[in-house]
Amino acid sequence: MTSINTDYRKDLKQMNNYATTTGALLATLRSNKPVVHHLTNYVTVNDCANIVLAGGASPIMADDLDEVAEIVAIAAALVLNIGTLNHRTITAMLAAGRKANELGIPVVLDPVGAGASKLRNETALELLRQVRVGVLRGNMSEIRFVGGLAASTKGVDASEADLEGDNQNGKQIARDLAQKLNCVVAITGPNDYISDGARTVGIANGHPMLSAITGAGCMCTSLIGAFLGVTTDYFEAAVAGVLCMGIAGELAFQAAGDRGTGSFRTALLDSISRLDPKTLEKMAKVDED
Amino acid sequence: MTSINTDYRKDLKQMNNYATTTGALLATLRSNKPVVHHLTNYVTVNDCANIVLAGGASPIMADDLDEVAEIVAIAAALVLNIGTLNHRTITAMLAAGRKANELGIPVVLDPVGAGASKLRNETALELLRQVRVGVLRGNMSEIRFVGGLAASTKGVDASEADLEGDNQNGKQIARDLAQKLNCVVAITGPNDYISDGARTVGIANGHPMLSAITGAGCMCTSLIGAFLGVTTDYFEAAVAGVLCMGIAGELAFQAAGDRGTGSFRTALLDSISRLDPKTLEKMAKVDED
Amino acid sequence: MTSINTDYRKDLKQMNNYATTTGALLATLRSNKPVVHHLTNYVTVNDCANIVLAGGASPIMADDLDEVAEIVAIAAALVLNIGTLNHRTITAMLAAGRKANELGIPVVLDPVGAGASKLRNETALELLRQVRVGVLRGNMSEIRFVGGLAASTKGVDASEADLEGDNQNGKQIARDLAQKLNCVVAITGPNDYISDGARTVGIANGHPMLSAITGAGCMCTSLIGAFLGVTTDYFEAAVAGVLCMGIAGELAFQAAGDRGTGSFRTALLDSISRLDPKTLEKMAKVDED
Repeated sequence: MTSINTDYRKDLKQMNNYATTTGALLATLRSNKPVVHHLTNYVTVNDCANIVLAGGASPIMADDLDEVAEIVAIAAALVLNIGTLNHRTITAMLAAGRKANELGIPVVLDPVGAGASKLRNETALELLRQVRVGVLRGNMSEIRFVGGLAASTKGVDASEADLEGDNQNGKQIARDLAQKLNCVVAITGPNDYISDGARTVGIANGHPMLSAITGAGCMCTSLIGAFLGVTTDYFEAAVAGVLCMGIAGELAFQAAGDRGTGSFRTALLDSISRLDPKTLEKMAKVDED
Repeated sequence: MTSINTDYRKDLKQMNNYATTTGALLATLRSNKPVVHHLTNYVTVNDCANIVLAGGASPIMADDLDEVAEIVAIAAALVLNIGTLNHRTITAMLAAGRKANELGIPVVLDPVGAGASKLRNETALELLRQVRVGVLRGNMSEIRFVGGLAASTKGVDASEADLEGDNQNGKQIARDLAQKLNCVVAITGPNDYISDGARTVGIANGHPMLSAITGAGCMCTSLIGAFLGVTTDYFEAAVAGVLCMGIAGELAFQAAGDRGTGSFRTALLDSISRLDPKTLEKMAKVDED
Repeated sequence: MTSINTDYRKDLKQMNNYATTTGALLATLRSNKPVVHHLTNYVTVNDCANIVLAGGASPIMADDLDEVAEIVAIAAALVLNIGTLNHRTITAMLAAGRKANELGIPVVLDPVGAGASKLRNETALELLRQVRVGVLRGNMSEIRFVGGLAASTKGVDASEADLEGDNQNGKQIARDLAQKLNCVVAITGPNDYISDGARTVGIANGHPMLSAITGAGCMCTSLIGAFLGVTTDYFEAAVAGVLCMGIAGELAFQAAGDRGTGSFRTALLDSISRLDPKTLEKMAKVDED
């Protein structure tokens, strides 16, 4: 019993550590308003811009090869999202990523739909080869594929096979791939797992409604991008983005109830824009190995 | 009087038939979650993704020539929407459509703005020549143009001349063009007309607010695409998509009242995500010839 | 004291003049439903389409070089927005603009992010060289840059340095640049300044929440585009667009309160769709030199 209590206190302490850090980063985001450069897909780009603004940062979307290097140079972080990639934007993503590396600007990569086509697979892997990625965020199928593990896919959603097999050992997968790929790996889904190879956490926040709207994953990636603009600890930034998104999902459902996915979507943006350190500390469900 | 009563009962029976079928398809959609591949425009693409998710299916948007064949292969239906076509995406639409035909995957075509430019006209006709289209959905001006009837146009909205002339004989036009084009034709607007050449229905559901937001037509096409993923009867799928959209429009207005088009839009998505067989049966206004 | 009263009455009269004109234009917009052709960015394009519809006009987005001339020809106004420009769309923007000039169709230009990259700078200037622009709308940084004044930039948002220095003499800057560029210049931000070189107004409507969502500037430009479809007085159209957007921002905040940016965004669209002449007259804060 003593040991249980001790563990509980330790967990609570860890939770509060991450929640506290996230709260502090959020405050910094709102005062610094870093510019976050996106090369992203046209499906959820408006959601990404709005979530970054709701978080307190300043999004800019620019994808022409002739300007990405300059735009990266005025940004504090770079988001690469291959959701609706094409040959023109792939070239621009590679150029933007290399420039970001050159300037020491952190990069988050969202390999949307990796596993669903050769073009996506090759692009995701080529980006990882040519660009030093700070954080890789995807669902279990996407991350497994990019990490070279057996993966099945169902378009842009994680397959149930991948989810079921991995809920048992999600942290281990995140840790292994973080070490293998030498970046922070954030796997989001019913449960979230984040690792930089040394530190690993699971996050139990979130709500099933997040998978009933488009863009929850993309928005999470963009939020991580925003946090990368205010800390040099990529692991902290990834935890902050995933934690904010999960808690905002819970708050959105509290606000929208069962009115439906349209109201939930509006409430999600509301929740990020109103999120405060106290709420983060109260609601965070982070457990660390 | 007896005959009136009989007709009434017959109509009600037909109504309930279509409402019942649509309810069953909706339930299947939510359990099967078919992948619906879109090559669509960047104006309403987020709305299309969200409406497909609200219906229960899984949208994926991909338009690069190098991946469309593979994405089609993992999809249960293909949506082609020429709203913001360009030469790159036209080539990809043709390739995706041909691949879908090869694999027996049903295709719905939305000839957005057909009649407004040579490029749109030629693209719509070329798609119909090279791709076996299961369902063609558009407004009266677009469908008249594609079907080779005299048409005037006013951008992406149906012209009033086309609407006035056709409300009298919308069913006849739908039936004639379905026979001529050898596909299901769905004409939506103040009144909806759907025909596969043999069966023809009119649907009196819907709300004027649907024309006060962008994307109602595109979303209807995407919903038809979702239903094509769970039935081999393309006519049933078209009726289901149009009926759900019309009823959701009425429910959205009930929920949003006169708060304005922003609230209506949110409520529309809510309504699709909450739509159930009972409501469909209660509200459906389908009449069959 | 008499002089104060006189001034007050004069100001009130001016205010009401602009509010009255805007109210009349809004009514015309809703009865004429002019087609407004956009070549715009993929971030806020859905918002632009919805705001134009909410205002009463009919948006069409088309950007392929092979169709822009035809689409312009059926439009009453042309909106050029360089938010996510690329080489393909730049060529199409120039062609669309030249065609609009040829046909006497008014053009509004939004030089999004001008100052942030050579490509944006050159494109904005090239558009002004090759196309007779009726209204140029941007934030203080963008307009300063395009007008050849010293400007700093922070991506797509106005820099604080530019804002602070200019709040004192915003009207003067608008007037000077209108004369220099020979078009109506509309600078929006915490305070709005509009001039055609002869007439100059400041508008004190608006709400800080407008800068917490993406697209407020783009939507304002699109609204100006809609008004250009119903008046030959470009200055009036620019005042109408800016005034409607500012007042709608205030109404949206009244409706959404502190629920957050998602609710504000929905309420903004609601407010434009419900805006009426009486409200315009009651709320307008226009002062003229």
